[in-house]
Amino acid sequence: MVKIMDPYGAELPEDYAKVIKDFGLEEFDVDDFPHPNCLMRRGVVFAGRDLKMISRCIKEKKPFYVLSGIMPTNDKIHFGNKQVVENIRYFQDRGAKAYILVADLEAAAARGVSLEEGRRRALEFHIPAYLALGLDLKKTVFYFQSENRDVVHMAYEFAKKITLNEFKAIYGSADPGRIMSAVTQVGDILYPQLEERMPGIIPVGIDQDPHIRLTRDIVDRTKDRKFFRPSSLYHKYTPSLDGSLKMSKSKPESCIVLPEDVKSAQKKLRRALTGGRETVDVQKKIGGEPEKCMVFEMHKQHLIEDDKELKSIYDKCKSGAIMCGECKDIACNRMEKFMKEFEQGIVKARKQVDRLNFVKFA
Amino acid sequence: MVKIMDPYGAELPEDYAKVIKDFGLEEFDVDDFPHPNCLMRRGVVFAGRDLKMISRCIKEKKPFYVLSGIMPTNDKIHFGNKQVVENIRYFQDRGAKAYILVADLEAAAARGVSLEEGRRRALEFHIPAYLALGLDLKKTVFYFQSENRDVVHMAYEFAKKITLNEFKAIYGSADPGRIMSAVTQVGDILYPQLEERMPGIIPVGIDQDPHIRLTRDIVDRTKDRKFFRPSSLYHKYTPSLDGSLKMSKSKPESCIVLPEDVKSAQKKLRRALTGGRETVDVQKKIGGEPEKCMVFEMHKQHLIEDDKELKSIYDKCKSGAIMCGECKDIACNRMEKFMKEFEQGIVKARKQVDRLNFVKFA
Repeated sequence: MVKIMDPYGAELPEDYAKVIKDFGLEEFDVDDFPHPNCLMRRGVVFAGRDLKMISRCIKEKKPFYVLSGIMPTNDKIHFGNKQVVENIRYFQDRGAKAYILVADLEAAAARGVSLEEGRRRALEFHIPAYLALGLDLKKTVFYFQSENRDVVHMAYEFAKKITLNEFKAIYGSADPGRIMSAVTQVGDILYPQLEERMPGIIPVGIDQDPHIRLTRDIVDRTKDRKFFRPSSLYHKYTPSLDGSLKMSKSKPESCIVLPEDVKSAQKKLRRALTGGRETVDVQKKIGGEPEKCMVFEMHKQHLIEDDKELKSIYDKCKSGAIMCGECKDIACNRMEKFMKEFEQGIVKARKQVDRLNFVKFA
Repeated sequence: MVKIMDPYGAELPEDYAKVIKDFGLEEFDVDDFPHPNCLMRRGVVFAGRDLKMISRCIKEKKPFYVLSGIMPTNDKIHFGNKQVVENIRYFQDRGAKAYILVADLEAAAARGVSLEEGRRRALEFHIPAYLALGLDLKKTVFYFQSENRDVVHMAYEFAKKITLNEFKAIYGSADPGRIMSAVTQVGDILYPQLEERMPGIIPVGIDQDPHIRLTRDIVDRTKDRKFFRPSSLYHKYTPSLDGSLKMSKSKPESCIVLPEDVKSAQKKLRRALTGGRETVDVQKKIGGEPEKCMVFEMHKQHLIEDDKELKSIYDKCKSGAIMCGECKDIACNRMEKFMKEFEQGIVKARKQVDRLNFVKFA
C-alpha cells in the first residue's frame, strides 16, 4: 500500500495525485455529477473508479446501488464515517438503492468482537448514528452479515479465486481472520447484484481501496456470474488536528470522535495547528495561511455547509481580517451545534430502528 | 487381546510407530473398547487422542458424539470412507450420537464446487452410500455446512484465534480457500457441543490429523467456551494394490473406488502385489508371505468379516496350502458380493434420504 506522506489540502496535491497514479484511479470530475455535495465541490472527494458508469445511471435514471458497511467494533464513529454517509446520501437522492451492512462477521474474524456484542452496538449506536448523519431511512436496506447467507456463501466461493500471495500483494499482509473478513466484504460489495443486476458505487476512504481492488479482481475471475465491477468514490482523510495526515484515535489529543463531549472537542480545536503567523501583528499585515490550517479544514470538510460563508472566512484569513482566535470561536460554536444535533439525532433515530428495512435471511 | 496380525507385516510398522511418536498420539488399546470391530481387532485402527475419555463414556453410559464429514467433490468414495463409517457405526452402537455434515462450504472454498452441485451430489450419492455402508439412519443427525449458521459463525470467530504462521505450521501451506475450509471444519467438530456439552470422537485417516490438532488448539484458546477437546481415532490406510502406502486415484490401476464396475475391480485384484514366491513349487514348500500381500490386506481390512476365516486363509498361505490364484478367487468373489450389495444399498438408501433427520438452520 502506498503511504501518503503528508497531510492534505490544496497544499499537498502531489500526495493525492500520487495515490491516483499509483492505484490507477480516475480523478473525480465534479462536472459529471449533478448538484455535487460539499465534499465533491470542495475537492475532498478526489478520485474514484468507473465513475462514468455511475454518472450515466444518474443522468439516464437507470438503477444503481450505493453500499457501505458498519464495523461495530466500538461505540464511537469518526469524521470519515460522516463523509461516507454524506456521499451515500448524495447517491440516494439521485436514485441509488442504498445498502448498509453490519459487518458483524468481519468484526468477529478480524477484531474478535462476538456477534452478540456487534449486534448490540450496531442497533444501539451505529445505525442510529448513521441515520442521525442523514442516511435516508426509507431508501436503505440494512442487513447483518451473519444473517445473510448469500454473502457468506459468496465469501466461501470467492476465497478459492485468490492465492495467498495475491492476497498479500493487495493487503500487504495476511492472517486467517483478515482473509475471511476480506472475502466476506467482497460478498457484501456484490450482494446487491444478486437482487438486481446493476452497477454500484462504494464510497470509501482511500485506505479501503484494497477491498475494491480485490472485488474487481474477483469479478474478473467469475465472468459467468456477470457481475458489474464495483465503482468506487474516494474522499480525502479528515486530517489530524496536529496537521498529520489522518485523524486517528492513536493521537487522542488531535482526534475528535463522534460523539464527543463538546468541551473536550472544543479544547482540541483550540489547540489545533493553524495557518497563523508568528505574531498577531504580522498576521494582520500579511494574512494567515488557511491552506495549512486544520481549523479551516474542519470548516471546509465538516462544519460549514454554505460555500459563500466558507469563502468569506478564507478571504478574511488571507487578508488578515480575521485572527485565529475568532476563527476558532466560529469552529467551536459550529462543533457544539453539530454535536448537539448529532446526539439528539441518535436518540431520535434509536426509536426508528425497530422500523428499519432489515433483510432477514432466515 | 492380541492383535491378530499387523497389516503391513514387517514392512511398515515402523512408519505408523513414527506417526504415533511424531504426532504425539496414543496407541489404540483394543482392551479399552468393548466388542471391538474388525478394524480395531486387527490393528487397522492403530492410534487416537484422548481415547480414555470416550471409553469411559461408553462404559459409564454417558453422552458423547461421533462426527464425520462428507466432502461432495465427486461421485465416488473410497475404502477409507468405508473404514470411517464402520467406526462411526461402532460408536453409534455403543451410545454415541452421530453427526454427519456435508462439507459443501469447504468443497466450494477448497475445491471450487458450487453449493448446488455439492448438495446434489451429497443427496444423490454420498449420503446414500454412507447408509449403504451401515450408518444407522435413526441415530444420525445430518446437516449441510451452508445451512448451519452456528458452524459458520464459529468459523469466523475461530479464524481470529490462529495466525498465518501457526496455520502453515499445522498444514504445511496456506491459501485463502484452505484456511476458510479448515476453520469451518473446526466449527463442525465442535458444533455438537453447542447442542449438548459432551465429549466427542472423530474417526479419521491420519492425513486428517491437522484438523484435529487445529481444533484442539482452538479449544485451548477459547477456554470461556468450555469445549471438550475432541478425541480422535486413526485407521491405517487401505494400501494401494501395488503395495505403496495408500490407495489413491492418482494410480487408478491400483485403486478400487466405491462403487466400481465389478469386472474392473476384479481385474485390479488379479494384478495386485502378493506375498507369493517366485514359483508355485517354492511356495508350496515354504509358504507365502501374507504380511506383504495386498490381497490379504483387502481380506483383512474389507472383505472378510469372520476372524476364524481370515486366520484360516493366513495359516493356509503361510503353510503353502493355498496359492495366490485361489486366494484371489476368494477376494474376487467377495468383492463382487460387496459391490453388488453396496450398489443395491445405495439404490435403497436413496429412497430414505427424504426421511433423514436433517438439521435446518433456516
